[in-house]
Amino acid sequence: MQEALTTRKEQVAQWFKGLQDRICAALETADGATRFEEDLWERPEGGGGRTRILRDGAVIAKGGVNFSAVHGPMPQNITNALKVPPGQFFATGVSIVMHPVNPHVPIIHMNVRYFEMDQNVWWFGGGIDLTPHYIIKDDARWFHAQLQQVCQAHDPAFYEAFKRWADDYFYIKHRQETRGVGGIFFDRLTQGHEKYPQHDFNTYWPFVQGVGNAFAPIYTHFMHKYKGVPYGEEELQWQRLRRGRYAEFNLVLDKGTKFGLDTNGRIESILMSLPPMAAWEYDYQPAPGSKEAQTLQMLKKDINWLA
Amino acid sequence: MQEALTTRKEQVAQWFKGLQDRICAALETADGATRFEEDLWERPEGGGGRTRILRDGAVIAKGGVNFSAVHGPMPQNITNALKVPPGQFFATGVSIVMHPVNPHVPIIHMNVRYFEMDQNVWWFGGGIDLTPHYIIKDDARWFHAQLQQVCQAHDPAFYEAFKRWADDYFYIKHRQETRGVGGIFFDRLTQGHEKYPQHDFNTYWPFVQGVGNAFAPIYTHFMHKYKGVPYGEEELQWQRLRRGRYAEFNLVLDKGTKFGLDTNGRIESILMSLPPMAAWEYDYQPAPGSKEAQTLQMLKKDINWLA
Repeated sequence: MQEALTTRKEQVAQWFKGLQDRICAALETADGATRFEEDLWERPEGGGGRTRILRDGAVIAKGGVNFSAVHGPMPQNITNALKVPPGQFFATGVSIVMHPVNPHVPIIHMNVRYFEMDQNVWWFGGGIDLTPHYIIKDDARWFHAQLQQVCQAHDPAFYEAFKRWADDYFYIKHRQETRGVGGIFFDRLTQGHEKYPQHDFNTYWPFVQGVGNAFAPIYTHFMHKYKGVPYGEEELQWQRLRRGRYAEFNLVLDKGTKFGLDTNGRIESILMSLPPMAAWEYDYQPAPGSKEAQTLQMLKKDINWLA
Repeated sequence: MQEALTTRKEQVAQWFKGLQDRICAALETADGATRFEEDLWERPEGGGGRTRILRDGAVIAKGGVNFSAVHGPMPQNITNALKVPPGQFFATGVSIVMHPVNPHVPIIHMNVRYFEMDQNVWWFGGGIDLTPHYIIKDDARWFHAQLQQVCQAHDPAFYEAFKRWADDYFYIKHRQETRGVGGIFFDRLTQGHEKYPQHDFNTYWPFVQGVGNAFAPIYTHFMHKYKGVPYGEEELQWQRLRRGRYAEFNLVLDKGTKFGLDTNGRIESILMSLPPMAAWEYDYQPAPGSKEAQTLQMLKKDINWLA
């Protein structure tokens, strides 16, 4: 067993599996009313995954914590999409989306991933972003402070750069709205990166582990804080409308989703990110001054939540 | 007024406006409980539209009947998307999607459009397709027979060719499911078309008018037939799941939606096609032999519904 873990990719995949286990345990405890269902799947061309789904919980309405590690010859559409030469590839990651029951609990997303190709080409990517149905500035500040702390431990420049990257990435262009209060996003972090020439695997791997480890304490904090706050049909309808935006982002814009659909990924694992129930109303405009209108006004890029 | 209508594009746009009026009147009468709301909008670069929305009706939960006629210099991303040289363009059309209250009433979509460019380049496109939440063969047969009749009056080859085109177009690739029972779809019908060298504006324009005229009788037939059929929470949840698939098609695959989002179209008019409420369940499998399972088995290409 020890010997089997001598390569980087095996180390990373094994740690991601353990991360999935720890996050699932933390979420089950915080929810208290339901357990993850697991689907093991194999990819005909090599590798597979562990899809874990939570549904109809006390706090979580629908969510997934997915691990996968796939490998084999790089499909043509992947080499095209990534603009890399053909060859063998290995990809592993953990992907999470949680849709809560209570509209006062935010939606959250986290992803950490590692990619490797021939000729010692490798990179890390990932991020965490928070989508409150109702934005509360103090919560956004606390959330960003957690992420800043994770970043700070590895490079003082990471938080600002990756926060801006999240603002750009989690942006619903056709609505001119951010998906939520953002977070951090990063991709293709590897040795010799033009912005961070001093860093290599020994910086990025502990950083990505830090991001993964931050998820459970962050989200269980919000679960505990808001699961008991009363709500009515008005808040539920607003939650469904915001979930509609979430579905728009994931189906129209999210590169991970598009990549999965384009490369015949496991559809049910990819689309676990979609909300349990969503709504669309023609030209919905919240009443001026309402808490819904206040949230809309904060769905903007370039807000310094730490200020 | 007569003089203003001497060009083809003005004739077509004027007729489309009248079609919108007639369809809205027929749908209001068939619904009986609600009226269309109208939003007039202008496009800064030229032209505009009349968006008409029906909501919370007795039969229609949410639907739109949109007319637009836009013109001006062709935006760069349109010339790229259509693979045509830069210049002036004119585009007019009527687009319809209806999401019914009762799961036994099918969802329907219709679009007719006319496009014109410099140097006498022009074409028609459009189609009608039906998405029953529960497929009933006799209804699919009747629906296709109506479309065959519309086609037959203009070219005996149209129905088969445009029915196959609809099977290919209204196909949710990542689910390996058709959106519904299909219908007809056609695009870039113009003079000198390689498959129909004998046809020109004088065939295509009456054909497209025939398609437009067929919509109201077809859909009001289904409204009347099924609006009174009882249903419960089980049928409503299945309806929401099928609406989820409809949203997936429109957001991931529909070229008209993508074109609209890419070219800064009027978002609320484009996304009126999205359902009032939709659901996603992880790996939902209907019980073997259930009417839901029977419907799934018929969501296939190449079914001859007329047989």
